[in-house]
Amino acid sequence: MKKEHPKLIGMERTRVKRSPNRGHYDDETIRAILKNNYLCHVAFNHQNAPVNIPTLYGLLGDYIYFHGATTSRLITNLESGIDVCVAITQVDGLVLARSAFHHSMNYQSVVVFGKAKPVSGDLKLEALKAISDQIIPGRWKEVRAPNAKEMKATTVLQLPLTEASAKIRTGPPSDDKADYDLPIWAGVVNTPKVYGEVETDPGSKVELPISKSVQSLVK
Amino acid sequence: MKKEHPKLIGMERTRVKRSPNRGHYDDETIRAILKNNYLCHVAFNHQNAPVNIPTLYGLLGDYIYFHGATTSRLITNLESGIDVCVAITQVDGLVLARSAFHHSMNYQSVVVFGKAKPVSGDLKLEALKAISDQIIPGRWKEVRAPNAKEMKATTVLQLPLTEASAKIRTGPPSDDKADYDLPIWAGVVNTPKVYGEVETDPGSKVELPISKSVQSLVK
Repeated sequence: MKKEHPKLIGMERTRVKRSPNRGHYDDETIRAILKNNYLCHVAFNHQNAPVNIPTLYGLLGDYIYFHGATTSRLITNLESGIDVCVAITQVDGLVLARSAFHHSMNYQSVVVFGKAKPVSGDLKLEALKAISDQIIPGRWKEVRAPNAKEMKATTVLQLPLTEASAKIRTGPPSDDKADYDLPIWAGVVNTPKVYGEVETDPGSKVELPISKSVQSLVK
Repeated sequence: MKKEHPKLIGMERTRVKRSPNRGHYDDETIRAILKNNYLCHVAFNHQNAPVNIPTLYGLLGDYIYFHGATTSRLITNLESGIDVCVAITQVDGLVLARSAFHHSMNYQSVVVFGKAKPVSGDLKLEALKAISDQIIPGRWKEVRAPNAKEMKATTVLQLPLTEASAKIRTGPPSDDKADYDLPIWAGVVNTPKVYGEVETDPGSKVELPISKSVQSLVK
């Protein structure tokens, strides 16, 4: 995978410090991770101390988008243009070494620094669709679209991917040379992303087949 | 579930603001979520801007513990006693409503505010075991314990649970009354935590049975 950091010269905070060989800075790698997830954690300062809020995001063009109630702490802080740091973390497996010290995880993570700003009009609706598509492709067109009141109650923020980095670990454990002689099993337990039971809303008035988007997701 | 907030009077930042009915402040609820996960995201300030780092944690007594290389940005910042906000988020399902607006997630999250501090001696070792047990119970006693050099290279931090809150959503979607008449399937797609394939380290010198801890985990 490409490891260049061409667009980020001088952006020291984006460089992966620990295990720098796991750092990636190319768009392709960063986008692949962003496409494969939907949950992010957003760090920002509120009353001079950090706050960390889990929320959903969508990837669209050169930005990630997230949304929230217009009055929420997340939105009112971020739309004022303060610094934000968004982390997306996908755990792929538990890495079980022969020594306690060399236990690790296989993971793919992205960290984005920057300032978010609100969007409006067509882009706001497109961004909401992108957040929906990120979680379950095709769902957006099956459901009732947002009305004017709902759009007004929702703020959508965009964060550019100009200061983004990825960090990836794959493969088996890496033990100290002498430890390979120990009679201790070592390897990786994979933690795949799976979908489980589909439960129809018991409040449904009529029986309907499960939506195509859901069938595609869980198939 | 209990919803009291007895120990937190005056700790305004710990109160759940959005959907306050989803907020929980009792130890039992908070600990149950912390016990069931191992990944957290740690937000702190570095050079006057927020940084958000995924890492592993362990629950032990009235604290969560996390560890890192002594020289890491995470550790050197946190051990100086600055404010930190740690988020743990477990996604239990995708909540698919009849309207785009009422789509949601079923989740269990914990947010902890406070200041972390390094621990040493027996507690440091106990905390490392707690982090290991959190991910895979029983693994610690199967593997080579940390030696003096490894212990020196690792810092372990404790963060008290005095300023912690939980937020939980369960159940089917909650649509606007009129939308229940729409011919749109609605329900929940569960996202269970599962373990997949177990891959023995191809670098193993001898063939060994898979460790008991791993067998218990994936059974």
